[in-house]
Amino acid sequence: MEEAMTRRRARGGGGAARRAERSAVVIETAKYIERNIPNFEVLNEEALEIIEANAETVLAEIGVNFVNNPAALERWRAAGAEVEDERVRIPRGLARKLCSTAPGQFTQHARNPAKSVVVGGRNLVLAPVYGPPFVRDAQGGRRYATMADFEKFVKLAYMSKWLHHSGGTVCEPTDIPVNKRHLDMLMAHMTLSDKPFMGSVTAPERAQDSVEMCEILFGKEFVRDNTVMTSLININSPMTFDDIMMGALEVYAASNQACIISPFIVGGAMAPVSVAGTLTQVLAEVLAGVAYSQLVRPGAPVIFGAFVSSIDMNSGAPTFGTPEASLVTYGAGQLARRLGLPFRSAGSFCGSKLPDAQAAYETANSLNMGLLSGVNFMLHACGWLEGGLVADFEKFVMDADQLGVLHGLAKGVPVDAEHQAMGAIREVGPGGHYLGCAHTQANFKSAFWKSELLDYKPFETWEEEGARDTYALASSRVDKLMDAYQQPTLDPDIAAALAAYVAEKKASMPDAFM
Amino acid sequence: MEEAMTRRRARGGGGAARRAERSAVVIETAKYIERNIPNFEVLNEEALEIIEANAETVLAEIGVNFVNNPAALERWRAAGAEVEDERVRIPRGLARKLCSTAPGQFTQHARNPAKSVVVGGRNLVLAPVYGPPFVRDAQGGRRYATMADFEKFVKLAYMSKWLHHSGGTVCEPTDIPVNKRHLDMLMAHMTLSDKPFMGSVTAPERAQDSVEMCEILFGKEFVRDNTVMTSLININSPMTFDDIMMGALEVYAASNQACIISPFIVGGAMAPVSVAGTLTQVLAEVLAGVAYSQLVRPGAPVIFGAFVSSIDMNSGAPTFGTPEASLVTYGAGQLARRLGLPFRSAGSFCGSKLPDAQAAYETANSLNMGLLSGVNFMLHACGWLEGGLVADFEKFVMDADQLGVLHGLAKGVPVDAEHQAMGAIREVGPGGHYLGCAHTQANFKSAFWKSELLDYKPFETWEEEGARDTYALASSRVDKLMDAYQQPTLDPDIAAALAAYVAEKKASMPDAFM
Repeated sequence: MEEAMTRRRARGGGGAARRAERSAVVIETAKYIERNIPNFEVLNEEALEIIEANAETVLAEIGVNFVNNPAALERWRAAGAEVEDERVRIPRGLARKLCSTAPGQFTQHARNPAKSVVVGGRNLVLAPVYGPPFVRDAQGGRRYATMADFEKFVKLAYMSKWLHHSGGTVCEPTDIPVNKRHLDMLMAHMTLSDKPFMGSVTAPERAQDSVEMCEILFGKEFVRDNTVMTSLININSPMTFDDIMMGALEVYAASNQACIISPFIVGGAMAPVSVAGTLTQVLAEVLAGVAYSQLVRPGAPVIFGAFVSSIDMNSGAPTFGTPEASLVTYGAGQLARRLGLPFRSAGSFCGSKLPDAQAAYETANSLNMGLLSGVNFMLHACGWLEGGLVADFEKFVMDADQLGVLHGLAKGVPVDAEHQAMGAIREVGPGGHYLGCAHTQANFKSAFWKSELLDYKPFETWEEEGARDTYALASSRVDKLMDAYQQPTLDPDIAAALAAYVAEKKASMPDAFM
Repeated sequence: MEEAMTRRRARGGGGAARRAERSAVVIETAKYIERNIPNFEVLNEEALEIIEANAETVLAEIGVNFVNNPAALERWRAAGAEVEDERVRIPRGLARKLCSTAPGQFTQHARNPAKSVVVGGRNLVLAPVYGPPFVRDAQGGRRYATMADFEKFVKLAYMSKWLHHSGGTVCEPTDIPVNKRHLDMLMAHMTLSDKPFMGSVTAPERAQDSVEMCEILFGKEFVRDNTVMTSLININSPMTFDDIMMGALEVYAASNQACIISPFIVGGAMAPVSVAGTLTQVLAEVLAGVAYSQLVRPGAPVIFGAFVSSIDMNSGAPTFGTPEASLVTYGAGQLARRLGLPFRSAGSFCGSKLPDAQAAYETANSLNMGLLSGVNFMLHACGWLEGGLVADFEKFVMDADQLGVLHGLAKGVPVDAEHQAMGAIREVGPGGHYLGCAHTQANFKSAFWKSELLDYKPFETWEEEGARDTYALASSRVDKLMDAYQQPTLDPDIAAALAAYVAEKKASMPDAFM
């Protein structure tokens, strides 16, 4: 009977050594995930063809708007689109043809070459939450984010084994003027971490600053020839490309730096309430955005993005971890692969105000779906709370721990002789147990994913130790990681040059808070 | 930018009527899930063939034990197996051949015919937690389960829209003698609910009592000709079939009642530490168990079961929601389909002591995997806590709410003209919004899965209302459901006959507490 389980628990032996090994903080970064499992595909060929044909109809008959951007309109006109005021109607097939010059995968270099990532193919690169104006933790509650919070998140991301990427605006440092904070954020990613990172997109000149700081960090020639940033370009769904985002895209594409071109969808508000309708619009938008990037510079690296949530029709609030968002994401992954582009979607999405069970259900729904839908770049992979308004410290380490589950799943099922384990089955036989057998001894260390956070202790021990829930365990893990943080080394000349660049830039303009 | 989301929230309109509609408790049972999505398959043809060949080797060369069961040994000998003491070695191909008489799907009838379920094919039937000796809730904490707790769970399962099945031992009513509690448990399922249920497996004579009570409820002839119970027969992995479980199986199979034949695996303890090795052993065990059911009665309905957890090698504790358990389950689903048998696995599994974030991550990992692995019968679909030692009231309604997500996902992506939504995309156009458009108005009620529990309110409202976490929301949902519970009607003659049977049975034997 299943209730008999814990009575059958057995001790693994060598407990003291293992406990010591376990309690040490290990700073180690896993390689980006290389999937050895299939993608999950919800759309059949007929459905894919209908959606693709409809997306072409949207582009040709309805069109998209490029706002306040005469140069973009001129590029489209020259490429053969029909331009009327700010509306761009793209003849069938043209956008897809333009997209064909975008690479199927690209390497984003980190200053530590061991942490460079390959985006595309069967890979999955994990990056932390992006954009929240608030932070939350157990001690301080919910409050506006500051630069100190930002730096703490960069350090936690650096310490996380399962994050491959330092991200971008992990929270908005609201204590720094809007027109200068990108400089401090980039400085933090460049000096507090050695993982790859994202550039600023809030103004074209800030994107240019991002490129120039990378030229200091990596060398001018290296940046000319290589991708060292992946930045987030949102489309204002439905079908609107604003001049700020496009201005940043133009800077990055011209510099051969990567952009995620990403519709931003709350289903039922910015897209139709149906999955097929949403997919049609998403595809049309990405086709137009990626095609435009290739008009700026053929061959510029881009990612097919899809930020998808659904809506609570009672309150109008966006909802996360829902089946409809999952279905859209599975379908969008298929459409991206048919376009031959890397795919960005999913994340630690949740609507909950606290890192509680709701947050965890919603997040786990999205993370699992993200892995199986073939996502290549997962922004927001940890730390997201309250519909993206809050970056939460405890949830950051809770989610980051779960990212280990994705690494384990992606391994698939090896069936070589060692994994077939026929010797072990023979050795143990009916009624025996496997704890001590040779095969277990040889393989147990790598056989199972091991949480660095979750509680597996016997009830009595757990109770004696304070009956701590996940939130409390996560709080102490945040502290432990921060205590153990050590800054990665950086050539002092480069560090000084970066600091001088930032100081000079800041001195060159008055503070702006809008 | 994504942080702009909540600023773009909009009101759906008609709020008062919708709020009223929403706050009423609706007693409604969804039809069992009919998947309109593919299964997720981690094993390729080569891997499947290796595992199947190895399972035959296990049966032929190592064999399985049938303990204290001379009649079973005799059946095996007559069928052509080699029997030595209690060890049964089954020649290659024999077990698979015997399994071929088991039906690929069967109907389990409920006393309310609208709630009968079809187990097998592309269907998924959801049943609650099974077996915990303890219960927990916010008011009373963790304590031994009683019959009152049992009845409360049966009522909550009856009230849940997404549970298709009333389950079996939703918790162990430890205040009732061991040899009599099955009578009270069956009485509760039969009278407090009208959903299908499970029979007793703790002794062959209790299985016989279960059949006799069903004969009163459904009529003798109906039970002879139809399946009215699905019961859980665990295999003592590795490869041991004990006389109590087999005794119950023999009663049910002979009566044409369904059994789940289910290895009980803590990976690394009861099976090898590798996924492929575990799958080999699981397949061998199920082949032997199902074959035996068909020796008892060819055509008896059975389910290929796989209860799978992994192990924390530090403490020896079973762990849940892990990648290794998911990979085993995905693979086991493929093996079950190749055998042509319905498949049971997954559930609201977690190791956490509380219904906190850990519990929810682990549970969501398992529920999602259960849907995609093609599970046909999911026992433990809600309410499981602390490695199955505890049935938790709050977690019961939290998990039950998430089962709605599985229903939504299983719908897949319809691409008929209405779902293509081209009219809506045309109507709204670039820069518009979909909240008021005709397509949204016509479809919003059914477009999105709607939680009955989770919080989507604006932060300020949520804070004013007490800043409740999921646990607190679940507590009040439990109370609300219990307040609204109304017993389904039952023919008073049948109710009286059942009561008389139970009274007579109880009077016929002394209390036993072991």
